[in-house]
Amino acid sequence: MTKEELLQKLAEFEQEDLSVALKAAQAAKRARTEGFYFLHYFFEEERIEESVGQSLVTIPVTELVMNPAKMLHGGVTAFICDNVMGMASYMEKGRSGVTLDLSVRYHKPGKGARLIARGEVVSAGSRINSARCEVRDEQGSLIATATGSFYHR
Amino acid sequence: MTKEELLQKLAEFEQEDLSVALKAAQAAKRARTEGFYFLHYFFEEERIEESVGQSLVTIPVTELVMNPAKMLHGGVTAFICDNVMGMASYMEKGRSGVTLDLSVRYHKPGKGARLIARGEVVSAGSRINSARCEVRDEQGSLIATATGSFYHR
Amino acid sequence: MTKEELLQKLAEFEQEDLSVALKAAQAAKRARTEGFYFLHYFFEEERIEESVGQSLVTIPVTELVMNPAKMLHGGVTAFICDNVMGMASYMEKGRSGVTLDLSVRYHKPGKGARLIARGEVVSAGSRINSARCEVRDEQGSLIATATGSFYHR
Amino acid sequence: MTKEELLQKLAEFEQEDLSVALKAAQAAKRARTEGFYFLHYFFEEERIEESVGQSLVTIPVTELVMNPAKMLHGGVTAFICDNVMGMASYMEKGRSGVTLDLSVRYHKPGKGARLIARGEVVSAGSRINSARCEVRDEQGSLIATATGSFYHR
Repeated sequence: MTKEELLQKLAEFEQEDLSVALKAAQAAKRARTEGFYFLHYFFEEERIEESVGQSLVTIPVTELVMNPAKMLHGGVTAFICDNVMGMASYMEKGRSGVTLDLSVRYHKPGKGARLIARGEVVSAGSRINSARCEVRDEQGSLIATATGSFYHR
Repeated sequence: MTKEELLQKLAEFEQEDLSVALKAAQAAKRARTEGFYFLHYFFEEERIEESVGQSLVTIPVTELVMNPAKMLHGGVTAFICDNVMGMASYMEKGRSGVTLDLSVRYHKPGKGARLIARGEVVSAGSRINSARCEVRDEQGSLIATATGSFYHR
Repeated sequence: MTKEELLQKLAEFEQEDLSVALKAAQAAKRARTEGFYFLHYFFEEERIEESVGQSLVTIPVTELVMNPAKMLHGGVTAFICDNVMGMASYMEKGRSGVTLDLSVRYHKPGKGARLIARGEVVSAGSRINSARCEVRDEQGSLIATATGSFYHR
Repeated sequence: MTKEELLQKLAEFEQEDLSVALKAAQAAKRARTEGFYFLHYFFEEERIEESVGQSLVTIPVTELVMNPAKMLHGGVTAFICDNVMGMASYMEKGRSGVTLDLSVRYHKPGKGARLIARGEVVSAGSRINSARCEVRDEQGSLIATATGSFYHR
C-alpha cells in the first residue's frame, strides 16, 4: 500500500485505535532510525541504570501488554526478565550474548502503573553467565523472579 | 488527542511506519470488539488446533517481533510458549488458570517465515497442571523447548 | 580405626542396621575396585540401555532413598534425572561433560518397587546439549519429568 | 541373613570399606530410632539454623557423595538444595509440604571440606511457596544456586 492508501485505511478507525497506531508508528520510526528493535520502543521499556553485571529496566503496564484478565501478560514479564538479565550479562562481559535458557516464577499479578525489573549476574564464567532478576510493582511487591543463563562467544 | 489530531500526526510518518501503525490499529480494534487481548492479534498468533490437553499455535517472524540480531526475540518465544502451554492446560481443565512458572530453553535462532509451537499437558493434578512445548521452524528444526506449570482454581 | 576395631563397633548394631552396613561395604568396595562412584552402587542404579543420545536407568525404591514420608526423596529423583540425562548427553557427544543446570518437576509420589528413568538429548550443540527425561514407576505412571543442559569441552 | 551371617560377611571386607559400613550402620540406627530419614544422617547433613522462612544446612564433601571426577555429585547438590528450601518453606508455613519443582544451576565444582547451603522463601502464597538457595564452599565461592516451589496443603 502507498502512504496515501495507508492513511485512508487509518482514517476509518476510531480514536482509541488510532492512539495505539500512533504509538506503533513512533516505535517503528525509532527502531528504523535509532537502530534498536521495535518492541523495546513499543513496550516503552526504559533502561534506568546499568553497571558491571547489573541492570534496571521499567515498563508501563498499559492495555497493550495486558492479558485477557487485565494484568501484565506473563509472556511480557518473561520478555522483560530476558532483557534485564541479558543486559546485566552484557554489562559484565562487554560483548553481546544469547540466552541459553530462561526460568520465570510468577508470584503476584502484574498490576499498577509500571513494573521495575532488576537484574544481576550471579556467576560469571569465561563464556557462560548466570543471572537472576526480580520484577516488582511500584509498591515494592514481588511480581516475578527469574533466572537465566547467557552464552557469550 | 482527537481523531483529527491523531490522523494529522500519523500523516507525518513514512509509508513503512504507517504499515506498522495500520497493523496496530487493526489489532487494537479486534481486541476492543472481539474481546481477546491486543498482543494476540498484533503478533498475528494463530490458534491452529486445540484438543484435550493439547494446543498448536503459529506466529509469523516479522520485524515486529525481532531482536537486534534480526531473529525472533527470546522474550517473544517465551510469550508463545506461555500461550500454547496455557491453552493446552485450559483445554485439559476446562477452566482458566494462571502460569505458576515457565522455563524456556533456546536451541537455535528463530528464523524463517513463521514458527510453530505445540503444547501438551504432561501431568494433570486436581489444581496444578504441568505442560511442555516445542517450538519449531517451518523446516521442522527445534528452536526452543519449554515446560511450565499452571494453577487452576 | 583398625579393621578389628571397626568390626567390634559393627558387632554392637542390630541385624537391620547391619544389612544396610553390608550394602555400604559392598558399594564402597565396588567404587574402589571398579572405578565408578559410591552412590551409583549404593543406590543400586542400573544402566539398562544406552544408545546415541539416549539412556535408561532404574533404581529400587528402598528405605535407603526414602524421605520421612516413606516415598522416594525428591533429591534422589533429581540425582537419577541428572545421571540419566548426563549419560544420554555423554552417549551423544562421546566425551564427558558437566551439568550446567537441572530442572525437575514432581508429578506423583515415587513409590513401588523401583523407578525407571529414560533420558534423551533434545538438541545437540557443538559444546552444549539439552536433554530431557521422564521418571515412571512400574505401572507406567509419570513420577517426575526433568530437563537439563550439559557442557562438553 | 542373621546378625551372625552379616558380621561374617562384613569381616571379609577391607578396613576402608568397613569404615563406610560403620557410617551406614550408624545412620540406619539413627533413622530407625530418631525418626528422621537415612540419607540425612548418612550424608551428615547438619541443620545449623532455622528461622521463619529461612534455613541453613551444611554437608561434608566426602568420598561418599563424590562423582567420578571427585567433586560433589550434582545430584547430591540438588538433594541439599531441595532440603534447605523445603525446610525454609516448612519454617514459613509451619506445616509440611511437598516439592513441586526444583531448578539448580551449577556454577563451580563442589570441592573442599564441606558446603554450606542457605535457603529462603522468596514469596509465600496461601498454599504455594517459592524459595531460592545458594550453595557455597568454605571460602564463600558460589557453587550452585537453585529455586523451587513447595506445596503445603
